[in-house]
Order: sequence, then structure tokens, then C-alpha cells
Amino acid sequence: MAPLRENSETPPLFTELFRDELTQLLRWRRDVRRFKPDPVPAEMIEELLDLACLAPSVGNSQPWRFVAVESAKARAAIRANFEAANAQALDGYQGEQAELYAGLKLSGLDMAPVQLAVFCDEQTLQGHGLGRQTMPETLRYSAILAVHTLWLTARTCGIGVGWVSILDPVQATKDLAVAEDWSLVAYLCIGWPEEEHHDPELIRHGWQDRSADCRKLEKR
Amino acid sequence: MAPLRENSETPPLFTELFRDELTQLLRWRRDVRRFKPDPVPAEMIEELLDLACLAPSVGNSQPWRFVAVESAKARAAIRANFEAANAQALDGYQGEQAELYAGLKLSGLDMAPVQLAVFCDEQTLQGHGLGRQTMPETLRYSAILAVHTLWLTARTCGIGVGWVSILDPVQATKDLAVAEDWSLVAYLCIGWPEEEHHDPELIRHGWQDRSADCRKLEKR
Repeated sequence: MAPLRENSETPPLFTELFRDELTQLLRWRRDVRRFKPDPVPAEMIEELLDLACLAPSVGNSQPWRFVAVESAKARAAIRANFEAANAQALDGYQGEQAELYAGLKLSGLDMAPVQLAVFCDEQTLQGHGLGRQTMPETLRYSAILAVHTLWLTARTCGIGVGWVSILDPVQATKDLAVAEDWSLVAYLCIGWPEEEHHDPELIRHGWQDRSADCRKLEKR
Repeated sequence: MAPLRENSETPPLFTELFRDELTQLLRWRRDVRRFKPDPVPAEMIEELLDLACLAPSVGNSQPWRFVAVESAKARAAIRANFEAANAQALDGYQGEQAELYAGLKLSGLDMAPVQLAVFCDEQTLQGHGLGRQTMPETLRYSAILAVHTLWLTARTCGIGVGWVSILDPVQATKDLAVAEDWSLVAYLCIGWPEEEHHDPELIRHGWQDRSADCRKLEKR
């Protein structure tokens, strides 16, 4: 990972060109579900984890915990978990919407060469509770910020990330046999994208277009 | 905001230089609590909101909602909320730790020229519930991804962001009189930093150092 600049007292001045590139990164980030089988070098994953650890966290609690899901047994458990949750989700839709849902590819669990389960250590002593008395959920939010950091930095190396949320998190936590106080916040499929798109898969397949609601700015 | 490149079928190839700059951005992002009083142009805030809306969201639900807190009355309510929550938090520490806590500057509410309350629209129909049957918390996580996107892009313009979580979120939601189904996920102080640092304030002031726990990679 790039070290601090030599003159570490002066923050970098970011150029218009950098801002433009960053916008392209945000536009092309995508949730990837179609992966090539090619492996991702372990040192690239290590670098991405280093970068993820630069994420902000409440009280500097750094509560994110990463588990690489590699064994056939662990992957089969996650696949079964996804399939059950997805079948149940499909039951909640009717008619055309059910058909559309059934046709969507909602995870890259079949092919992604790297799979990372991301947990929040709910009982971490780090941060000494600062900033999370009234909003304890900020601990999990901190782990989410690490996920996003990993996602963006992966994309700069051409690596795609897909976030699978159609999982029973308690079952996944049991199946992966992690510490009792860890709760699953995200399950990430990671690898080389089979296709590249700047528009979300769910827009391309007619599920949910961009909305204007989220862009309004109310004032008080 | 920078439009898509003309050749919108080909994803950008990010250079080593870009990756290095992005790492500097992650290193210097910081949670800012000390602001200059100088105003931030409204069009910069609008641009940051445009960029924030590029964040990923579960089922493309785009559940983030932004409220600019501008009036003296609304700001006073948030200040009172923070002061009560902070006094209560201080009561939870003893001895040296209480002294250290009392000396920390934990918000920029006194000076930040722009203050944004960020909510999650818990009942949005957007996304039609996709991806959040078993992990409904991913809706709030999506709003957090927008917060992080705004934070990083603000920093590229030299603008600092400080996240205030020492607030009673239910009280803040009432005081800001937003829609019933919105829940507060973050309260952001935004403005020009009075000082620049590459190390977190909580490290500099001896509260919580970086930890190695978060960087381990377990395997299953």
C-alpha cells in the first residue's frame, strides 16, 4: 500500500483529473455477479484488506473482521443458505415480478474465486464505547465503511466485488464457526468480472431504475 | 459531476498513480471536528449529493435521504441533544478515562457551516424489497455507503466531514420533523478544516490507537 508522502504534514491537493477519475470509479464500481474462474493473487487480497483497514470507525473501534471462505464444506453451506433464502424471497413476489425475480442472477457464489465474510465484533473493547452509547449501530456501520473501501479499491485493480445479502446471517455465522460476538454484516464475492457495465444489473434487467427521491435536499 | 466517458462501453483502466492518490485520500480522509467559519458554496454541496447518489444500494433501493439543518432553532435542538447524550456518555467513564473523554472535542456542531442529517427511508418501495428479506439492515447500510461516498468526495475538494453519533436518534428525528418512516443514520458536520492531520484525532489524543485485530484474516 502506498506509504504516506514524505512531507506528511501537508495534505495532498487533489486535482480536477483525480476527481474526474474518482467519479468514473464511482460510476463503474458495480455489484458484480458474473465472474471469470481465474484466481486472484493472494497478495492482492492482502493489499485490499490493508486499504480496508483505513476506513473510518466510531471511536476508532475498527470492529471489522474478515473471514476467507475457502473450503468446499464452508462454501456449500453458504450456497445452501443462499438458495433457501432466495427461494423464500421468490415466494414473496407474484406474477410478472416473480418471473423477473426468478430470472435475475443475484449472486456470484457459483464462480467467484474469492469469498469474504465480513463480520462486526460487537463486543470489541477497542474505542472504549466512545460515540456509540446512543447509536450502537454505528459499530456495524463502521464495518460497512471497510466493506465499501475494499469494494472501491478492488475496482481500481480491475477486481469486481458482489455483495450477497440474501442469506440468513445467524445461520452463516454458525456455519462459519466464528467468535460468538461477531455478527455478519456482508458476504462478498470477489474476482475478475466476466462483463463490464456502467449501469447496475437491476436497471439493465428492469427491476428498479434510478430514482429522484434520494436526491432531494430538504431544509430545516 | 464528470459525465461518463464518451466510450461508455469500456471501463476505465486506473493507473498506479490514481491508486496511489486514492490511498492518500483514504489516509487523509479524517473525521473533522474543527472547522473554519467560512461558508461552503451551495453548488459544492449539490455536487457532493450528486456523487453520493452513485453509492451502491441493496436492490437499487437508494434509501438515503438528506436534510440540511440550517435554522437556528433546528441547530439548537441538535446541540442540546448532543450535549445531553455527551454528558450521559461521560458519566459512563471513571478516573483518568473520564478526564480524557471530557477533554476530547467530539463534534464540530459549534462551527460547521453546513450540517446534514442523513436518514434511511425504511419504507421505501424502491428496490421492491430485493435483497433485504433476511438482512433488512442492508437498507440502512446502503444509506451509510452514500455517507461514505460523500465523505471521500468532499475530501477531494478540501472539504472536511465529521460524523456526530453522540445523539439520541429518535429525538433528532422528532426535532427535525421528517417523515415518520425515516430513521437517522448519520449527522454530518461539513466545512473547511481548521487543521489538517493524517492521524485520527482519537489516536493523537491518546484514546484508541490503531489495532491489529481488525487486520487478521481467518480462513474457513
